[in-house]
Amino acid sequence: MSESPLRAPARLTIADVARAAGVSRTTVSHALNDRGQVDPRTREKVKQIAQQLGYRPNLRAQRLRTGKANSIALVSSMPFSVAGGPSRLGFMMEIAGSAMEAALRQGLALVLVPPLDAAEALLDELDIDGAVVIEPAAHDRNVTQLQRRGVQVVSIGRQPEGDQALPYIDLQGYETGRILLQHLAEQGALKTALLIGTQPRHSYVDMEQAYRDFAGAREMPVIIVRAEEAGGESAGREACRALLENHLGIDAICAPVDAFAVGVVKEIQARGLRVPEDIRVVTRYDGLRAQSCQPPLTAVNLHLDEISVLAIDLLFEHINGQVKRRVVTGPAPSLVVRASSSTAAGA
Amino acid sequence: MSESPLRAPARLTIADVARAAGVSRTTVSHALNDRGQVDPRTREKVKQIAQQLGYRPNLRAQRLRTGKANSIALVSSMPFSVAGGPSRLGFMMEIAGSAMEAALRQGLALVLVPPLDAAEALLDELDIDGAVVIEPAAHDRNVTQLQRRGVQVVSIGRQPEGDQALPYIDLQGYETGRILLQHLAEQGALKTALLIGTQPRHSYVDMEQAYRDFAGAREMPVIIVRAEEAGGESAGREACRALLENHLGIDAICAPVDAFAVGVVKEIQARGLRVPEDIRVVTRYDGLRAQSCQPPLTAVNLHLDEISVLAIDLLFEHINGQVKRRVVTGPAPSLVVRASSSTAAGA
Repeated sequence: MSESPLRAPARLTIADVARAAGVSRTTVSHALNDRGQVDPRTREKVKQIAQQLGYRPNLRAQRLRTGKANSIALVSSMPFSVAGGPSRLGFMMEIAGSAMEAALRQGLALVLVPPLDAAEALLDELDIDGAVVIEPAAHDRNVTQLQRRGVQVVSIGRQPEGDQALPYIDLQGYETGRILLQHLAEQGALKTALLIGTQPRHSYVDMEQAYRDFAGAREMPVIIVRAEEAGGESAGREACRALLENHLGIDAICAPVDAFAVGVVKEIQARGLRVPEDIRVVTRYDGLRAQSCQPPLTAVNLHLDEISVLAIDLLFEHINGQVKRRVVTGPAPSLVVRASSSTAAGA
Repeated sequence: MSESPLRAPARLTIADVARAAGVSRTTVSHALNDRGQVDPRTREKVKQIAQQLGYRPNLRAQRLRTGKANSIALVSSMPFSVAGGPSRLGFMMEIAGSAMEAALRQGLALVLVPPLDAAEALLDELDIDGAVVIEPAAHDRNVTQLQRRGVQVVSIGRQPEGDQALPYIDLQGYETGRILLQHLAEQGALKTALLIGTQPRHSYVDMEQAYRDFAGAREMPVIIVRAEEAGGESAGREACRALLENHLGIDAICAPVDAFAVGVVKEIQARGLRVPEDIRVVTRYDGLRAQSCQPPLTAVNLHLDEISVLAIDLLFEHINGQVKRRVVTGPAPSLVVRASSSTAAGA
């Protein structure tokens, strides 16, 4: 653990309470913890004095005895250009909002671990009982690091090709892809291209499978291009340029990373083409990026509120060894149609 | 502290390392902490073996010695109907996104404390060195509770009428009010009403002062209505109804709480009036609610990214007793004009 310059605040000890109550420290300890043989009136008196003095038990000493931190971490391994961004209102923070409430209901505090390289040191130092990792890639460093420490980990979204599969909440990536592609076809798209990230995440793996199956069933050409997540919007724009220059007649682009999708819309418009009249665009996460894009992006409601609660509950179960559920399936993803793929929605 | 059913994970101890290295536990401790008289080769060997075994120092024992938690909390005292909401993407989560990065740079973990009554118990149990409280009301219970524990607290936004004024980041509520009212006047508004919350928060106090000064300087009638934050959107709608039924000729409404503003727009539209042609509407926080309202709401960029970093830095300084800054002024708020107040912006 690195040395930090934080000072310890002065704190009342059990000795102060014992002195004020005129009893031994052992009696104070037994009285406050409802243990041992203590006269009920003495117990009451000690509790009263402890409260008057503002005495709080030494949490760290208690934790050392019980081995519990009563804290869990929420960890994102997406690069900052995707997980963060100018408004900082992304996928992770939407999950964090619900997760902190769900954790609270279990008596657990939620610690946030941001998607930055510097977080690696923090992962070694956090006093936590478990962690929820958001959409880990295969061989995710954060997961490995936490497991090496003996911290219980569950993931939101399946970890692909994990050596030891983590318990996870199924984000139903295949179904998400299917409803987006189905919607594009219903809007008249005949030649849909797929733009995904290069990293081995379930969302890309599942989306690609849904796309290949969809194209196969309709004899649609398979046009897939990949971009680096870390490149964010401009990587999406670059990839779109390559798509349009190398393929004629593309009339729809499915770009599940919202930052990529915004780049796609900008590139299409910069070429004097119209969204959605010339090319329809859809994305996955229905966040601020999708909603504030011009035109707003058709996206998928992943029901992250409910997903977060399921993840916290699953983690709690595994920490306690109560159950051995490996997979929990959340609510089905539902389509949110907007003007980027439908002229009707733009009205 | 309440008992939680969390189990302690098995953990390698210093004795395991000592056994494997064939040295005493004291030697291991000295070697790993670079203390005492240990032969450099032994030190290196112990470190290597500790790493091979995956030994991590017992953080809780270390914390007990140093008295440091290396964690800080982010606390919101706004009711859930305002701070949370269907999408959970509010003011608090935007601050949390930047604050977790800023905390990380100081080597501190950020713990989220949600705006719920149940959080009160958590505030007593959290092992933290300090807390950032978002826009506390006067006599805020969360602040009192934390201070009683000896936890260092700073606030984002001044705490009004505090017995002991907290160190704070100035959110410049007066200036925020001034630019909103100035903008409405420039858009042709002659009779602007103010809709604020009933709670004693700096944002309402400052906004009201700015409004009274503005009205006084222009001989505009002072029309102020208050609503309960906990009522959210429907409370805003109720208040708007009262405004329009009791006052003729209102052509603009300034509603700094975004949930209220959305209710205002719905009430105006339900009456067959148009926003902004008949009544202009503006709000304060430029979040998802403002941006996804129909029409989108003119709002203020409070630069919460930078504000969050300033708050974490100020808290860190106070925890360490390095400086005695009581007030830090952040970047000036800037207007974001949208279709709710400007026909030009709607084009």
